[in-house]
Amino acid sequence: MSEAVRGNAVVGQSGGPTAVINQSLVGVIEAVSKCRAIKHLLGARHGVRGIVQEDFIDLKGLGRGLLERVAGTPASALGSTRDKPDEAYCKRIFKVFARNDVRYFFYIGGNDSADTARIVNEMAAAASHELRVFHIPKTIDNDLCVTDHCPGYGSAARFVASAFVGDDRDSASLPGIKINVVMGRHAGWLTAASALGRTDRKDGPHLVYLPEVPFSTARFLEDVGRIFARLGRCQIAVSEGIADRRGKPVAQVLAEKLGIELERDSHGNVQLSGSGALGDFLADYVKAELGRKYKSLRVRADTFGYLQRSFAGCASPVDAAEARQCGRKAVEYAMAGDLDGSVAIRRAKGSTYRASYFRARLRDVAGGTKPLPRGYINKAGNGVTAAFAKYALPLTGKLPVIGKLG
Amino acid sequence: MSEAVRGNAVVGQSGGPTAVINQSLVGVIEAVSKCRAIKHLLGARHGVRGIVQEDFIDLKGLGRGLLERVAGTPASALGSTRDKPDEAYCKRIFKVFARNDVRYFFYIGGNDSADTARIVNEMAAAASHELRVFHIPKTIDNDLCVTDHCPGYGSAARFVASAFVGDDRDSASLPGIKINVVMGRHAGWLTAASALGRTDRKDGPHLVYLPEVPFSTARFLEDVGRIFARLGRCQIAVSEGIADRRGKPVAQVLAEKLGIELERDSHGNVQLSGSGALGDFLADYVKAELGRKYKSLRVRADTFGYLQRSFAGCASPVDAAEARQCGRKAVEYAMAGDLDGSVAIRRAKGSTYRASYFRARLRDVAGGTKPLPRGYINKAGNGVTAAFAKYALPLTGKLPVIGKLG
Repeated sequence: MSEAVRGNAVVGQSGGPTAVINQSLVGVIEAVSKCRAIKHLLGARHGVRGIVQEDFIDLKGLGRGLLERVAGTPASALGSTRDKPDEAYCKRIFKVFARNDVRYFFYIGGNDSADTARIVNEMAAAASHELRVFHIPKTIDNDLCVTDHCPGYGSAARFVASAFVGDDRDSASLPGIKINVVMGRHAGWLTAASALGRTDRKDGPHLVYLPEVPFSTARFLEDVGRIFARLGRCQIAVSEGIADRRGKPVAQVLAEKLGIELERDSHGNVQLSGSGALGDFLADYVKAELGRKYKSLRVRADTFGYLQRSFAGCASPVDAAEARQCGRKAVEYAMAGDLDGSVAIRRAKGSTYRASYFRARLRDVAGGTKPLPRGYINKAGNGVTAAFAKYALPLTGKLPVIGKLG
Repeated sequence: MSEAVRGNAVVGQSGGPTAVINQSLVGVIEAVSKCRAIKHLLGARHGVRGIVQEDFIDLKGLGRGLLERVAGTPASALGSTRDKPDEAYCKRIFKVFARNDVRYFFYIGGNDSADTARIVNEMAAAASHELRVFHIPKTIDNDLCVTDHCPGYGSAARFVASAFVGDDRDSASLPGIKINVVMGRHAGWLTAASALGRTDRKDGPHLVYLPEVPFSTARFLEDVGRIFARLGRCQIAVSEGIADRRGKPVAQVLAEKLGIELERDSHGNVQLSGSGALGDFLADYVKAELGRKYKSLRVRADTFGYLQRSFAGCASPVDAAEARQCGRKAVEYAMAGDLDGSVAIRRAKGSTYRASYFRARLRDVAGGTKPLPRGYINKAGNGVTAAFAKYALPLTGKLPVIGKLG
């Protein structure tokens, strides 16, 4: 078997974009441009959807200047998709690959994308069509298995930490209770990043609520009341994914407590995502309960929304460089033999942060998600530990430095 | 009369903070430290409230390093207040000044602060207590009279423009309708800044709704439908202050259309501020109306919230430098004779941006607010003009550069 089979390559991007997902794309383009074995590099528009529709852009021969601008641009330059291919969909993908002599497939995405890559790969093997499939990780949620961390997380964490640092000063200027809702439906990695800019015990966030810990409204109210009594203010980080002991979304729990009728879609499901409902309900609840004790209590909520993954001009330099390298590594691994897998990051032991890369098996990455480990959550379940900060700070780059008076 | 009367000085910060309000504070501290006539520089904690409570911090002799860190920190380092002093409150302020031999008062804030400064000043004159009162402008709303623009606006505009640039790429990746709600209750300056990062006609925001233009839901729906039919997506900037022809807040108009009962406070007023309600209602409305024509239409809304004024690490360098200079100028003017006023910025004519400073009369600044002029709004009333971009771009500093494929 030749070390590098001749043919074409396809690259695509999938799922929720990140601030550095185009770094990985440009990493692939750069590395492929040095590969004689690859004739055409086809960029699939909107991920797998572009593949089955054969909606491709030729990515070879693009100028250095344009590539660098693309690399620095948030969100998926090729377009993304929410399609999660089943077997039949994967079959259509494979047919397009076979027809277009595609021998390399680089798919930048989360664990669903790794799973798509795995299925297509198995089909190729069954049909004896040599195909080298590489998943390139990206997700602001940082919840992929095997890898130490995911490209995209560092930049989103940097945004969230910077937002909390500034908002904490704002909330200290005009004291009250401030609630900020952070993305991350199933894992608390990004919400935990809210605490990375803290420099002393008076700094917010004073409370951090994660999807890994069942949420109790009674406990929440007690926490907030205690902090407010001590500091005269309280800044709170809340994951959009918090749910009670039985898995019921907190927005729904609170709507019932507040006597608010929630809209339901045609399937009878309450629409909670992509809205300010959780933050607004938490604020209303705190105001209703603590407002009895404290007259004219100032309670505000912000839902950070899509800015967390797309804000332009705030990417973490470490994250950007690693995302680029993951793209290059995928091509390097694919050239090394009849291999497939997912690019993963290993962190060197020791006090200085250093990353290296290795090839993980697709099925190990496709299989699941990685919640925030218990050791990164404080005992009370309402904050993060120093071990988490040690883990995450090297990924965000230097955070804003704060000066205070009196 | 001596050119510089001997005594103490008070400095305070008021109203909604900005990312550069501490630059002005540090400008005052720097300039005062060179004035022999001023013995103590008293920082009033939480603005006028700190004055009447005599809650002061001595600001002379702070180290250079700390001052620079404070200058670079968003929000009011001295604390802010929402108190709007009436005559009786101003009398208490004046009494504290008289008792503490305060001869200089520097108040960093919006037009309410200019008005407070004006009243205290008149009381001092009536009592023949020589007091030199200077208002130092700040507001992300950019709606103060006389001055070409307000310190704080450039940084908030930079944040909003950067957010729209990234969010537009995100929305192009996963096409649909995206609504972003921007701060600015009465003036559209900040919402207009959403368009500053546009590089071609396909870029968002495709529609911009300002408080200066009465909002029509029918017209809005027609606009959005037209853009969506043409581009397959639509990014929309909406000011939180939009209201219909009779001045009714749009969130309330839409809640009625959608059959949603809004919560009312004890005064019977609908609570709309500091919440995601407007964005959520607009999204629900578009989804309900256009969703009939387009199946599985993706509609999302974000409310940018406090991040617009407090995000750390994204200040405009021009804005930061001008805010600092306004603080220094206030002290310089106060030393020049028995004067009072508000520091204002003048823009030099010509193609290169250059700012100079002058002393405006307190009553001219205290008097009112400045809406976005008609020439900065497009004819259709749903976008901004090139003249606005020419006005605003020098204030934001360099915006993120974008690269696109295909």
